[in-house]
Amino acid sequence: MKASDIREAFKLTERGDIISFAGGFPSPDTFPVDEVAPIAHFVAASQGALSLQYGPTEGLYELRELIATRMRAQGIACSPEEVLITNGSQQALDLIGKILLNPGDTVFAEQPAYIGGLSAFDHYEVKFKGIPIDDNGLDVDRLAAYLEANSAKSPEEAETPKLCYIVPNFQNPTGVTLSADRRRKLVELATTYGFCIAEDNPYGELRFEGSPKPHVKTFDTRGAVLYLGSFSKTLFPGFRIGYVIGPEAVIQKLAIAKQGTDLCSNSFGQKLIIECARRGLLDAHLQGIVDVYRAKRDLMLGSLGEHFPAEVQWTYPEGGFFVWVTLPPGMNAKSLLPHAVAEERVAYVSGGAFFTDGTGSNTIRLAFSQASDDEIVEGIRRLGRFLKSRLGRPEPAARTSGGGAKGADLVSATCELEQ
Amino acid sequence: MKASDIREAFKLTERGDIISFAGGFPSPDTFPVDEVAPIAHFVAASQGALSLQYGPTEGLYELRELIATRMRAQGIACSPEEVLITNGSQQALDLIGKILLNPGDTVFAEQPAYIGGLSAFDHYEVKFKGIPIDDNGLDVDRLAAYLEANSAKSPEEAETPKLCYIVPNFQNPTGVTLSADRRRKLVELATTYGFCIAEDNPYGELRFEGSPKPHVKTFDTRGAVLYLGSFSKTLFPGFRIGYVIGPEAVIQKLAIAKQGTDLCSNSFGQKLIIECARRGLLDAHLQGIVDVYRAKRDLMLGSLGEHFPAEVQWTYPEGGFFVWVTLPPGMNAKSLLPHAVAEERVAYVSGGAFFTDGTGSNTIRLAFSQASDDEIVEGIRRLGRFLKSRLGRPEPAARTSGGGAKGADLVSATCELEQ
Repeated sequence: MKASDIREAFKLTERGDIISFAGGFPSPDTFPVDEVAPIAHFVAASQGALSLQYGPTEGLYELRELIATRMRAQGIACSPEEVLITNGSQQALDLIGKILLNPGDTVFAEQPAYIGGLSAFDHYEVKFKGIPIDDNGLDVDRLAAYLEANSAKSPEEAETPKLCYIVPNFQNPTGVTLSADRRRKLVELATTYGFCIAEDNPYGELRFEGSPKPHVKTFDTRGAVLYLGSFSKTLFPGFRIGYVIGPEAVIQKLAIAKQGTDLCSNSFGQKLIIECARRGLLDAHLQGIVDVYRAKRDLMLGSLGEHFPAEVQWTYPEGGFFVWVTLPPGMNAKSLLPHAVAEERVAYVSGGAFFTDGTGSNTIRLAFSQASDDEIVEGIRRLGRFLKSRLGRPEPAARTSGGGAKGADLVSATCELEQ
Repeated sequence: MKASDIREAFKLTERGDIISFAGGFPSPDTFPVDEVAPIAHFVAASQGALSLQYGPTEGLYELRELIATRMRAQGIACSPEEVLITNGSQQALDLIGKILLNPGDTVFAEQPAYIGGLSAFDHYEVKFKGIPIDDNGLDVDRLAAYLEANSAKSPEEAETPKLCYIVPNFQNPTGVTLSADRRRKLVELATTYGFCIAEDNPYGELRFEGSPKPHVKTFDTRGAVLYLGSFSKTLFPGFRIGYVIGPEAVIQKLAIAKQGTDLCSNSFGQKLIIECARRGLLDAHLQGIVDVYRAKRDLMLGSLGEHFPAEVQWTYPEGGFFVWVTLPPGMNAKSLLPHAVAEERVAYVSGGAFFTDGTGSNTIRLAFSQASDDEIVEGIRRLGRFLKSRLGRPEPAARTSGGGAKGADLVSATCELEQ
């Protein structure tokens, strides 16, 4: 097993005085420890017989009810029986692979896509078909053209499209959001061509401005969409509580797969989140962190405008954790990274890792979620200076033959990148 | 997907006034809520930046160190790098299947075996080869004979033995313990024939009497044994913290599989267990619950002797949660169960579910871990009266065609049975 280049890059940043925009964790400064500590005490002292015990594989019914109620308010008609609690939404991705995917099946993914999603499905030996994204998210017309051409092929030659994996809001890694019109069209395509959609929405509630788009699942009348949510970004990740919403029959299959996988998710975390909600902390906290992350985004976008060279482009995320940077063609973000670390003590994730086809070598993912305000200003100033120094200079040779992230590479990059 | 008969039986017991020996959960009365509540407060208030954050896929290093130190004291030479934290040991079983097993591989299992282990491996489309057990655990000579015969076959006809799955101490479901001599021989067979051993030991520290047997892994010089442990029985299951110990190269592969599966286990539970250990609660609690469960076992064994008919046999567990009952040949525990519930308001798990070959229809698993002292005495009295009333009576027809637990049946039984 070879360590990925990304893992190596992270090792570089473990030395002191490096400003890193690589890790996409939530900021620990946002964790409401003063409120959570007495709740944790209460959950252990008053509910120990349940909170310290095994729970149902499907999750505690009260939490499934709470999630169903919240999602109904967001337009997703669902009952508690249509909700399965998982170890973060990452586990939902794995379980979907387990019950749905066979070797050789085709999985549509955004190009670029969240690496953790790709690595979950990659285990099931599928073929990835990357669909490009633009400022309005996945290019659904391109997907439609592909599907039409594929359906015209002979049964022997045609691919078997089984799943489309998308992060529709403030996507990881690009920060872009799928337009409402494309959401509707995507569900129509799923219905017409008989594939499922995994709508992975960890960042959706972290919207800084504008109106929320309707969830993809709100257009779904046939049970083609599995909606994945998580408390990891909106509250904190320390209990690994995520969920998946789908038709009851599918949830039952996922629950059976989960039973063999780990019996049940931790009861304590489920009880704690229920109690956080009961005390109003869930909503109050969300309002607070939206302001925190909006300010960080504004700081990063302002700094990019001030310090980055004119030849470089970047996205404008309306929420979430990430900005996506495109360097001029021919620049190689991966081979530049060690130099950026050595010369300017600043780190990022080179974007090529998020592509399944070997492209994207001139792209960069910047996370604004973890760095302090001062670090954002200073780090972007340094990175801008570094990029200016490299523009038009002969490119140092990439250390590997390039190519997109696959297999072990994909997987070993997941941990450091997170959702 | 059809609901298993076991699930149906559990539904019966959801009505009031039923005394159930079916569920193998730890007793919530043993949970040290008064000690845990301030620790939970401390872990959130003082360590929130880590305890509420994502953690490394491999688990927190401090917990891996703690486990390695404890296991070295039990004779297993291991470093923290040879420990992977999992969501209960159930997840370790799934991950072992994921990296090790291919469709058609042969997995040796005790006959009868823990259903959760069978269901974890069943997903990987293996063949199970059941090896009978007696009062000294797995019949290793039978396994040796099988392996010798298999190795004499042509490559086309020979099976591919890949894994032997055992619960060596106070086995679920039978309560028996593998003798030291057989442990040594089993490792020799694994080395000779090139298969792995999954040594699943959730109950080992719950020994009521006698000396602990050396762990199977202590005989292992070639890295053939993966040792699985858990805090679910020795402390409480509410955080789903288990672990697997093996060669560092295997642990790295398991970690990569875990990354794609759920990124990491919950940090809060890991931090809480570290703090429980630092305050001495881990050892103090263990001493206390051994006394509790010993008393429950003694009560059950005494009641069995007093109330059960002479034609019925049972095991003598030196630890753990379970007693295994064998009825006279021809009696069918599964078809009797609804009658026991209806007539005497008492429930058990019919043992056939733990067999992969359709045998064991005259066996019963009784858990003494969850029932109160009064319930144990009264429940065994009722069950004895019921069995006496049925001895020599024509057997009511079984409602299904029999056969061992397989596929969906296996899996849907897991949750209720637990480890």
